[in-house]
Amino acid sequence: MTVRLSTRAAQTHDQPISYFMQQAVENANLISLAAGLVDPDSLPADEVRAALDEILKDAGAAQAALQYGTTHGYAPLREKILARAAALDGVKPHDISVSRDDVVITTGSQQLLYMLGELLLDPGDIVITEAPSYFVYHGALTSLGVRTLQVPMDEEGMDTGLLEKLLARLEKTGELSRVKLIYTIDYFQNPTGLTLSWPRRQQLMDIVRRFSKKQRIFILEDAAYRELRFEGLDVPSLKSLDRDNAHVILAMTFSKPMAPGLKTGYGILPSELVAPLLRFKGNHDFGSSNLAQHLLDCLMANGAYERHVDRLRDVYRHKRDTILDALAEEFAGATGMKWTQPQGGMYVWLTNAVPTGPDSPFMKAALAEGVLYVPGQFCYVSGDNRAPNNGVPPENEARLCYGVASVDQLREAVRRLGRAAAVCGAWEPACR
Amino acid sequence: MTVRLSTRAAQTHDQPISYFMQQAVENANLISLAAGLVDPDSLPADEVRAALDEILKDAGAAQAALQYGTTHGYAPLREKILARAAALDGVKPHDISVSRDDVVITTGSQQLLYMLGELLLDPGDIVITEAPSYFVYHGALTSLGVRTLQVPMDEEGMDTGLLEKLLARLEKTGELSRVKLIYTIDYFQNPTGLTLSWPRRQQLMDIVRRFSKKQRIFILEDAAYRELRFEGLDVPSLKSLDRDNAHVILAMTFSKPMAPGLKTGYGILPSELVAPLLRFKGNHDFGSSNLAQHLLDCLMANGAYERHVDRLRDVYRHKRDTILDALAEEFAGATGMKWTQPQGGMYVWLTNAVPTGPDSPFMKAALAEGVLYVPGQFCYVSGDNRAPNNGVPPENEARLCYGVASVDQLREAVRRLGRAAAVCGAWEPACR
Repeated sequence: MTVRLSTRAAQTHDQPISYFMQQAVENANLISLAAGLVDPDSLPADEVRAALDEILKDAGAAQAALQYGTTHGYAPLREKILARAAALDGVKPHDISVSRDDVVITTGSQQLLYMLGELLLDPGDIVITEAPSYFVYHGALTSLGVRTLQVPMDEEGMDTGLLEKLLARLEKTGELSRVKLIYTIDYFQNPTGLTLSWPRRQQLMDIVRRFSKKQRIFILEDAAYRELRFEGLDVPSLKSLDRDNAHVILAMTFSKPMAPGLKTGYGILPSELVAPLLRFKGNHDFGSSNLAQHLLDCLMANGAYERHVDRLRDVYRHKRDTILDALAEEFAGATGMKWTQPQGGMYVWLTNAVPTGPDSPFMKAALAEGVLYVPGQFCYVSGDNRAPNNGVPPENEARLCYGVASVDQLREAVRRLGRAAAVCGAWEPACR
Repeated sequence: MTVRLSTRAAQTHDQPISYFMQQAVENANLISLAAGLVDPDSLPADEVRAALDEILKDAGAAQAALQYGTTHGYAPLREKILARAAALDGVKPHDISVSRDDVVITTGSQQLLYMLGELLLDPGDIVITEAPSYFVYHGALTSLGVRTLQVPMDEEGMDTGLLEKLLARLEKTGELSRVKLIYTIDYFQNPTGLTLSWPRRQQLMDIVRRFSKKQRIFILEDAAYRELRFEGLDVPSLKSLDRDNAHVILAMTFSKPMAPGLKTGYGILPSELVAPLLRFKGNHDFGSSNLAQHLLDCLMANGAYERHVDRLRDVYRHKRDTILDALAEEFAGATGMKWTQPQGGMYVWLTNAVPTGPDSPFMKAALAEGVLYVPGQFCYVSGDNRAPNNGVPPENEARLCYGVASVDQLREAVRRLGRAAAVCGAWEPACR
C-alpha cells in the first residue's frame, strides 16, 4: 500500500555529507576533518557535574529544573545571555533597544534558523547567503521551497559591493520584494574561517536599510563561533549596529563555547518577531530542555562559563597552529594550493590544486589514506545562473575542521592529505 | 518599515490557553487545575543526580554525553526503549517487525507530532482526532493548513462506529485520499482521562486497513500516559496489533513517567518513514539533547526508571482519589454534573451543569474564587458542519488536571469550584 508523503518531504533531502560521515563511522582508522564537532578533551565535565549537583541537591531548584519550563526560555538565563551579549559589544541592552524579552532560547541555534524560515519565508522567497556557506542551513531553505542566492567572499568576508549589485539587479527584475533575509556567519565562518570586517559590517547595515523598500530585509547574524577568538581584536556584532533593534536577528549557541550535548542556543530578535516566533515554538516543542537551561544559568552565574571559554581559546589556538604548521610543511612550494588563516573558530578553508569533489581522484585517495574532509562544493548552492561562473561551484576547495581531532591526529591527517595529493599527482593535469 | 511574515505565520496562532496561563502566573493565590504539569514533589532529583554524577565522573562517558549526538538518537537508548515498549505488550520486537532503527528520539513527543505533520501532510489534507482532543496538537495542524475532523468519544474512547461512518462519507465525497492520519491518545486521554477499549482497538486497526485504499492511512498512537496506570488491567497498544509495522506510529515520552525538564520523547515508526523523518529532524536540530539521552539511558540501565514509574503510580492514584472524593462530596446530588473516573494519567473531564467557556459566568466566578481549569471547548475543533451539532463544541465541559496541585490544593480547588458553581447559581438557568 502506497505511502504518500507531503510535497515538502519530496524537497527535503539528506545532507550530502551524510554518506561521508557514515564512512567515518565504519572506518575506525580514518581521521575525520569533516565533522564539525568540538574538541572532546576540553569538554567541561567537572564544571557541568558540579553545577548539576548544586541544582539537584536543592529540592526547590531541582523541581524547577525537572518540571516543564516555558516556551520562551528560562527568564534568568535570558537575562544573563542579554547582559553578556551586550558586554561583548561594550554596550548596554537599552543602547540597542533590547530587553530579555527579545531573547528566545532554542534547541541549538539550528532550531532558531529553522523556525525563522517558517516565520518569515514563503516558497519562492529569497535568502542571500555567503558563497560558500553553512550547508545544513541551505538544506533547510531548500526544504522550505526558498531560493538561496549567494554572494562571493574575500578576506574581509561577504563582498558587500557584490551584494549591493545583486540587490539592485533583483530590484530591476521586480524580485526585491522576495528578499527577506541575508544570512551571514560573520565570525570565523563555517566553512571558510573568515570574519566580516568592520567596514563591511557598516556597509552591510547601510545596504540592508536602503534596500528595505516594500518590506523589511532582516540580517540573520549567525555568531556561533564569536567567543572562540584566539587572535586579533574582536569586531562589534552587526546586532550592536542595529540601534533600533529593527533589522538584525542574532543567533548564538552554547554548543561551541560550552558543550554541544546541551543542545541549547538562543536568538536576540527584533521585538515584533518574538511573539510570532514563539507561536511556532509552541507547536514544535513548547520549550527546549529546561534542565539544560537551568544548568547553563548556573554556569553563567558562578563564572564557570567565562573561565571555560577562556580555556577553550588556548585549546583552539593550539590546534589551529598545529594544522597551519602542518599544512605549511606538507605543501611547501605547492603551487595552486592555499588555505585561510582563521583567527578563531575551528575551520580552515583549503583551495586545492586539483578537484576535491565526492567522486574526485583526490577524495578517493584521501579516503584510501584514511582522512576525510568536506568537499567545498557542498557549501555552494548550485544552479543560480546569475552567480559568478553561472553558479557552477568551484570544484577544488575543501573544509578542514580542526575541532575534534587531537593535535597528533591533525598532524597525521595533513600527512595523509599530502600523500593523497602525491598519489593522484596533485599538481599534474592528469588528476583533473 | 513593514514586516512581512510568511503565509504560515498568519495561520499559526497562540494557544487559546495562553491567556489563562498568564492569569495563573500573575495570581499567586490561584490554584491551577489547567496546566498539564506533573507532580512536582515526586520529580526524581536524587536519581537524576546520581546518574549524572556517574556519567560525568567518567571521562569517556562525559565526553560522549557532552559532544554532539546523532540525529536519530543515542543507539543504546533506542535499544532499551524498544525492549521496554515491546515488554509492555508482552511481545518481542521482531513479533511486530520493529528494530531499534525504527525508534527515533525527539525533543519531547511534541516534536515528533510536529515533524510527522511536516512529513505526511499537505495543506488541505485531513487528520481525524478524538472529540475532544489535545489542543496543542490541533494548533500545530492548523499552522500546517491541515483540516482536522473529530470523532466523538464515549466511555470506551473514540467511537469507531462513527469513525467508520465518517470515512465512508469522505469516500463518497472523494476526500478519502486526503485522510493521512488518525490521531488517538489511547491511554487516559488528554483531556478526558478515557482509555480506548480492547474491542475498539481491534476495530480501529481493521477500519484503517480497510480504508487504506489509494494511500496508506496511519494511526498516530499518542501513549504519553500509558505507564501511569494505577488501576485496572493494561490494554495492549495499537502498535502491538500492527504486526507488519505498517500503520501505527507510536509516540511516547519521558516527560510524564520521568521528568518534563529532560524534554525527551520518542517514536516507533513504520520503517519507510524513518529516513524521511530524519531528514526533517536534520533540518530542525540534527539531534535532541544528547546529555538528556545519556542520562535516560543510564536511568533505564540501572533500574531507576522502572522504580520511579512504580512510585509515580501510587502518587497519581492518591491524587486521583483525592480529586474524585472531593468532587463527589462537593457536588453530591448536583443534577447535570458528572465527571470521568480515570484509571491512570492526570486528567478528569468534568461535564458541568452550566457553560464553562472563557467568558462564562462560571469561569469568572472560578477565577474570582482562585481556581483555574481548561474550558472544554478549547479541546474541540469548531466549524466542521458535518460533525455532531454542526461542529459547535459543547460549552459545559472542563479539563481538570490533578498532576501539579498538591493533595491539599486539590481539595481546596474543588471547594472553590463548588463556590463558583454556587455563586453563579450553577443549577439555575440564570447562569446559562
